[in-house]
Amino acid sequence: MSKKLWGGRFKESINDLVDRFNESLSFDRRLYAQDIRGSIAHSRMLAKQGIISDNDASRIIDGLTEAKREMDRKNHLDSDLEDVHSLIEKVLVAKVGAAGEKMHTARSRNDQVALDMRMYVRDAVTRVINLIKEMQRVLIDLAEKNIDLIMPGYTHLQPAQPVLVAHHLMAYYEMLKRDKQRFYEDLKRVNVLPLGSAALAGTTFDLDREMVADELGFDSISKNSMDAVSDRDFVIEYIFAGSVLMMHLSRLSEEMILWSTQEFGIINLPDAFCTGSSIMPQKKNPDILELIRGKTGRVYGHLISLLTVMKGLPLTYNKDMQEDKESLFDTVDTVEDCLSVITLLLKEVSFNGDTMKQACEKGYLMATDLADYMVVNGSTFRQAHDAVGKIVLYAIDNKKELHELKLEEMKQFSKHIKKDVFKWLEPASAIKRRNLLGGTGSRAVLECIKQAKMEINS
Amino acid sequence: MSKKLWGGRFKESINDLVDRFNESLSFDRRLYAQDIRGSIAHSRMLAKQGIISDNDASRIIDGLTEAKREMDRKNHLDSDLEDVHSLIEKVLVAKVGAAGEKMHTARSRNDQVALDMRMYVRDAVTRVINLIKEMQRVLIDLAEKNIDLIMPGYTHLQPAQPVLVAHHLMAYYEMLKRDKQRFYEDLKRVNVLPLGSAALAGTTFDLDREMVADELGFDSISKNSMDAVSDRDFVIEYIFAGSVLMMHLSRLSEEMILWSTQEFGIINLPDAFCTGSSIMPQKKNPDILELIRGKTGRVYGHLISLLTVMKGLPLTYNKDMQEDKESLFDTVDTVEDCLSVITLLLKEVSFNGDTMKQACEKGYLMATDLADYMVVNGSTFRQAHDAVGKIVLYAIDNKKELHELKLEEMKQFSKHIKKDVFKWLEPASAIKRRNLLGGTGSRAVLECIKQAKMEINS
Amino acid sequence: MSKKLWGGRFKESINDLVDRFNESLSFDRRLYAQDIRGSIAHSRMLAKQGIISDNDASRIIDGLTEAKREMDRKNHLDSDLEDVHSLIEKVLVAKVGAAGEKMHTARSRNDQVALDMRMYVRDAVTRVINLIKEMQRVLIDLAEKNIDLIMPGYTHLQPAQPVLVAHHLMAYYEMLKRDKQRFYEDLKRVNVLPLGSAALAGTTFDLDREMVADELGFDSISKNSMDAVSDRDFVIEYIFAGSVLMMHLSRLSEEMILWSTQEFGIINLPDAFCTGSSIMPQKKNPDILELIRGKTGRVYGHLISLLTVMKGLPLTYNKDMQEDKESLFDTVDTVEDCLSVITLLLKEVSFNGDTMKQACEKGYLMATDLADYMVVNGSTFRQAHDAVGKIVLYAIDNKKELHELKLEEMKQFSKHIKKDVFKWLEPASAIKRRNLLGGTGSRAVLECIKQAKMEINS
Amino acid sequence: MSKKLWGGRFKESINDLVDRFNESLSFDRRLYAQDIRGSIAHSRMLAKQGIISDNDASRIIDGLTEAKREMDRKNHLDSDLEDVHSLIEKVLVAKVGAAGEKMHTARSRNDQVALDMRMYVRDAVTRVINLIKEMQRVLIDLAEKNIDLIMPGYTHLQPAQPVLVAHHLMAYYEMLKRDKQRFYEDLKRVNVLPLGSAALAGTTFDLDREMVADELGFDSISKNSMDAVSDRDFVIEYIFAGSVLMMHLSRLSEEMILWSTQEFGIINLPDAFCTGSSIMPQKKNPDILELIRGKTGRVYGHLISLLTVMKGLPLTYNKDMQEDKESLFDTVDTVEDCLSVITLLLKEVSFNGDTMKQACEKGYLMATDLADYMVVNGSTFRQAHDAVGKIVLYAIDNKKELHELKLEEMKQFSKHIKKDVFKWLEPASAIKRRNLLGGTGSRAVLECIKQAKMEINS
Repeated sequence: MSKKLWGGRFKESINDLVDRFNESLSFDRRLYAQDIRGSIAHSRMLAKQGIISDNDASRIIDGLTEAKREMDRKNHLDSDLEDVHSLIEKVLVAKVGAAGEKMHTARSRNDQVALDMRMYVRDAVTRVINLIKEMQRVLIDLAEKNIDLIMPGYTHLQPAQPVLVAHHLMAYYEMLKRDKQRFYEDLKRVNVLPLGSAALAGTTFDLDREMVADELGFDSISKNSMDAVSDRDFVIEYIFAGSVLMMHLSRLSEEMILWSTQEFGIINLPDAFCTGSSIMPQKKNPDILELIRGKTGRVYGHLISLLTVMKGLPLTYNKDMQEDKESLFDTVDTVEDCLSVITLLLKEVSFNGDTMKQACEKGYLMATDLADYMVVNGSTFRQAHDAVGKIVLYAIDNKKELHELKLEEMKQFSKHIKKDVFKWLEPASAIKRRNLLGGTGSRAVLECIKQAKMEINS
Repeated sequence: MSKKLWGGRFKESINDLVDRFNESLSFDRRLYAQDIRGSIAHSRMLAKQGIISDNDASRIIDGLTEAKREMDRKNHLDSDLEDVHSLIEKVLVAKVGAAGEKMHTARSRNDQVALDMRMYVRDAVTRVINLIKEMQRVLIDLAEKNIDLIMPGYTHLQPAQPVLVAHHLMAYYEMLKRDKQRFYEDLKRVNVLPLGSAALAGTTFDLDREMVADELGFDSISKNSMDAVSDRDFVIEYIFAGSVLMMHLSRLSEEMILWSTQEFGIINLPDAFCTGSSIMPQKKNPDILELIRGKTGRVYGHLISLLTVMKGLPLTYNKDMQEDKESLFDTVDTVEDCLSVITLLLKEVSFNGDTMKQACEKGYLMATDLADYMVVNGSTFRQAHDAVGKIVLYAIDNKKELHELKLEEMKQFSKHIKKDVFKWLEPASAIKRRNLLGGTGSRAVLECIKQAKMEINS
Repeated sequence: MSKKLWGGRFKESINDLVDRFNESLSFDRRLYAQDIRGSIAHSRMLAKQGIISDNDASRIIDGLTEAKREMDRKNHLDSDLEDVHSLIEKVLVAKVGAAGEKMHTARSRNDQVALDMRMYVRDAVTRVINLIKEMQRVLIDLAEKNIDLIMPGYTHLQPAQPVLVAHHLMAYYEMLKRDKQRFYEDLKRVNVLPLGSAALAGTTFDLDREMVADELGFDSISKNSMDAVSDRDFVIEYIFAGSVLMMHLSRLSEEMILWSTQEFGIINLPDAFCTGSSIMPQKKNPDILELIRGKTGRVYGHLISLLTVMKGLPLTYNKDMQEDKESLFDTVDTVEDCLSVITLLLKEVSFNGDTMKQACEKGYLMATDLADYMVVNGSTFRQAHDAVGKIVLYAIDNKKELHELKLEEMKQFSKHIKKDVFKWLEPASAIKRRNLLGGTGSRAVLECIKQAKMEINS
Repeated sequence: MSKKLWGGRFKESINDLVDRFNESLSFDRRLYAQDIRGSIAHSRMLAKQGIISDNDASRIIDGLTEAKREMDRKNHLDSDLEDVHSLIEKVLVAKVGAAGEKMHTARSRNDQVALDMRMYVRDAVTRVINLIKEMQRVLIDLAEKNIDLIMPGYTHLQPAQPVLVAHHLMAYYEMLKRDKQRFYEDLKRVNVLPLGSAALAGTTFDLDREMVADELGFDSISKNSMDAVSDRDFVIEYIFAGSVLMMHLSRLSEEMILWSTQEFGIINLPDAFCTGSSIMPQKKNPDILELIRGKTGRVYGHLISLLTVMKGLPLTYNKDMQEDKESLFDTVDTVEDCLSVITLLLKEVSFNGDTMKQACEKGYLMATDLADYMVVNGSTFRQAHDAVGKIVLYAIDNKKELHELKLEEMKQFSKHIKKDVFKWLEPASAIKRRNLLGGTGSRAVLECIKQAKMEINS
């Protein structure tokens, strides 16, 4: 049976089930470093404002600093206390006595936990942005290294037109760029100091909130105490940015799973990222990529979880909001792990240039270019489109590819086709014709790679 | 660096991040009892079919039995192995040598994990049904104990008509009855033996699947090996049944939170289920109920998580499906804890009869009954309805309740009102008039309580 | 500016935005047939109980019957009224005068809309079960028609072992069987008459609820009026059963999309279910299958929508619950359309037997069988597994398939290999060895087909 | 049976079910204005680049302009064509003949629909920001108008401390400020021109993408054609921003529903935003607020829907993505309607100052201030907190409020209490003590209102 800091009010004891159900220490201990850092800044400010003595502040700060060092060494902070805030206060009071009891002056757990969560998310955003950048760097490297390779580009999972492998990879660079922006933008709303809001109404003490904000690196201070203790937008936003990021990683994972099948056979996954089968030793299963794809669901789940928790909650703090922590922590872990592991994997992926080249030479991938050819030679787009449709049907019926048809065969369908069509129908020339910014031409792609390198280092 | 059972295929080693990312032992160790029980049944059958020797089977079974005892005593099954299946096999081989290597004959991890999960869900369903029944019993008791109390019944959170507290409580009995059915029905689909499906195609060994099913208590055996290793419907269904249950608990929690406010003031929550505030010692916060309400989001999240994981997965097993475990385990824990804690709470709730009675006497709760009165006395429903609307408006303008109006005042609005209207307008008489099955009359409610007692003990 | 049936209470008029926001006629008009059928049964019972006259009941029933006929002919039931219930009452009163005003006696919109929704879901369940059965029939036919075809079975999208196409198809039969069960089971909870619950507390009139239940085909009557008007479990359950069904269809769609790629090339989709591209005329895009896969998200969305709506709602009716309709209706449409269209598609799919056969002969799909062979010849499972791992590696290094190795080459790795291994390594013999119930052997599959035919016609 | 623009490839006809299933015109017709505007800019550029003649461009632009005028007048754009793009092209060709067939040169439906959606979302963002600003203005007005009113501030729905009504309202101003930011930030990613990406690989024509971007008001042009046609982040982001906004509105709705209950009784909702009951004429149901609360689920559903659709999709365009439209359109409508209607409602809400004042005088709302008082008079925070806990218990046992206790009674529990405590314990003085920025003091709140007015007009 635990003793609670707020226990004065109650006559009955609280039984063990309720204790276990109610406690958050088993997961919010993860906030201890943020909690201590916040308390140090708060105490220093209290002293500067004359609310506690300089001597008390020194003892508190020394005690907290020592507690931090001890906690850094421990894996678990087990205790029968309710939460990390109670635990740290108890440890502190054990170390410095009555001075420790003054630390919580002009503060409530409501603004304290909001502070801790904001500092935690801020750290997490910094980490995830670095991981995204690292993945972007690896994509750029991989694109550059394979700048000469051509692969089939797909729509509806049907081969459509030849593209550069580098172009395909840089599509993911673009997605990650947006992901990075979204996390950055969350930071704007994260980095607001809530301390000073107390339980809900603000405090009666003459605090220097700017001083605390400065010490803790906050850009601004909250403008409304009721909002400050009720707000978890910044947590939900992190999870949302993580959801879209995971969606992007799931797409890349899906593609690499497909590409590494026997049937596609266009990439080789590094052995270290695959597993075998207990009953089928020949298998080289893309487990890591499947897990990343699967873990997308996990992060979506956390998003829905927290949106549901917050729906229809009256102001200000309600205990439902304690559910924010596990959802956030698991999202942070999942997103960081997935980024790390897929980045390592990308470093060791290799492409089968020959297989890809062969894939570009069958399946009528040059049909669009043939239509464009006719337009350049005087056809309207719709006429050209219709003619190509008929040529392709003819070719299929005759079991030929477009470049295997004779000039005369093609000419049956359009007067806009001439001898130079065969040069035009080489996959490599299709690439060359697409050097408009955004296109798959080597020049266009190299330009994007160049810009990407500058962006990433700026 | 761990060694994998399936490691023969690979030349490279697997680094630590990948190991950590890939491993499931940290959570699937929760399946050790099911896994061992399944392996014992499988081994016994292998021997009976002459696939392994009786002697080997005995050694395996003894070894597993001993391993089970050891594992029962440990809290954690830490190891650098990949999953609980590998761990148990390794422990077994350490105990009994080569015989242990024969245990996995005619089996794959794919059908093995499906077996473990089904046994786990089966146990969980049994537990949750018992918890639901216990909560139903407490609701019945509480209804009986308070059979005389009248409270306002609400629509749109506006007081509408008087109802019996017992009637209101029994509404939750009905919801839980449906919840119980849904869990039961899941059992029908859970309790199908997948073993014998091997990796995906069935096994070449002449197994006796019925024998294993009998020993493990399965009602039937799976009819299609590819489906058997791909199917996680039964897990999703458990989580769905849990989601609806949590939705019901969230409604009850919301109601008790409202009822225990200063403003409603119609119930007293037991101190043990409330907490104080670190800064507002007078507060008696309904934390437990808020947590239950909040944890609804958590279970919804798991539902979406797993539905997302399974969407669009080609047959048969894909590693994405490993994500089923943590979602399930956390749902099981959450649902069981919430049921336990709310049941305990209900045992100690008390109702403020006087406050509720007063609440029934203001707010025009008898308006509907007044309309019914007029219909009984010859009015059409729509005319009665219109007349009551005008009477209520008149009463509000004159700051009176209905029973405070004079007969003459009422008669202005309808010729169908006579002196006996005042008796009719007493809340208790409104209750008495509603003894049709399903209504809030005491007789009707007592009849439902009687039936409920029989149902619950059948 | 509309006039409301309940308008007596209000002094102000309600402006157009609010009207539009509040109205439900634009979507609940879909319930008109259920609403009218329910009102007829209610009125007949009112007369039998002497609450209204036989003459009034006749006029009401005739008026409603005529109104139904008229509404059957119209596509839209436009009006400035608030909902379908108001509209029908207004139409009725216009036809039969004051008698029409008596129809709503002893009833509230709360139990009325619950009735309509239950009748609607009941009809929808009947329809969806028929559609599922039809799809099952087509799967059985397709399985039978292709009973001789062998294809690679996959785990992790890597070819693992040969399986019968018929076995693969019958996996979906099994999934659909569970889907059917879930819809059936919902029916148990749907088919409960709520009428007689009135607004929330039951009615003061002496209704014959059993009579109404009989006329409308309900199995039972609700036991608690507060629950009866608050309950939307049956709607959520329909959407959940639909979600799992869509998940299954998304898996089949994904598979057919993969199989119809150039790279897999093992099925031909009928042209009618594909579309071309405006710029790439050679494309045969599996649009229909992609749409089915995509619409899975739509149904998941509705599930979350309604679970969110109901979370934390105090009893009894709250207007939030009006949101149940559009989610349900769109789910019904989506599920029915997807089932219909995929069933039609399956009727015209054809398999490329040769391509599949070739695919079974490369990729070491017989590795598991080779291990089983060794076990049969005296090896332990783990030793066999390790040896096969090494043989596969050797074969890959030598660019050979297993059946292309010489006996001596294999014997290097295990003494348990003899000359008869080559016969064992034919894909067709792997199939033959798996006739245990649930396995992919022809006999086992034909047995399942036989059972399925009986099930479906029972 | 419809004819398709891309029909050349197919021999079979497509049946009606498939047509209906596949078509998008019934909902994407909503994009006609964007589609036409985009085609005009594209055609003008084609002419400038010499890809089509000036004369053809003029005819196309005139034809489209006329088509736009006609479509503006029609409510529905019914047709048996597949989508809005086909319809507009057909209408154009009917008007201007062969010239119309050239419009689609150097373009694909993939980049065309991406363009339309971006323009649509851009318009929607502009509208929603204006609606948010309007709601913020009304909140500011309402705060100013009620600047003198004090109400109980709640945590856990238990009265905690007195706050200004204006402070409570301004909490929502802050939430909306973040919502506005999120929509603005989406704009950054929305406002990128995708045209020129063609189907997936870029185009072979020498387009002037900057010219088109200028004409259509885009800030930048897409850098990767494969990403440009695969990306729906900007749609999901709109829906996410809408989800958080709806979450905020659901909290405000919940509060106003609570406040307007008989039990709280602290606000009066305008009649026009409430409805009556068909059976309980006295009811004044907050339907509009309940609907807003309920519609939150609807928008969450759309978010999950689209995240699910996009999960694991290989690049580039897949037909699944057609599902983006209905989710977006319904979100746009829901968000705009909810904002409009709650804004109108807020304009007419009134507060019951006396009821709120009385509510502040009971329930020990001054407990925190009493603890602060003791700290100011020399106690440590924890000692003060404990002492107040005991005083409150004593007061409850004696059925008194804090200000009703005698000085001697209080002094029993702490030596830090003196006579001036009673002045300190007036709710109004609690407000006055909280003028630190962010607090509920009138000066602090007025300062925030002043800043808000500047922000909103900047």
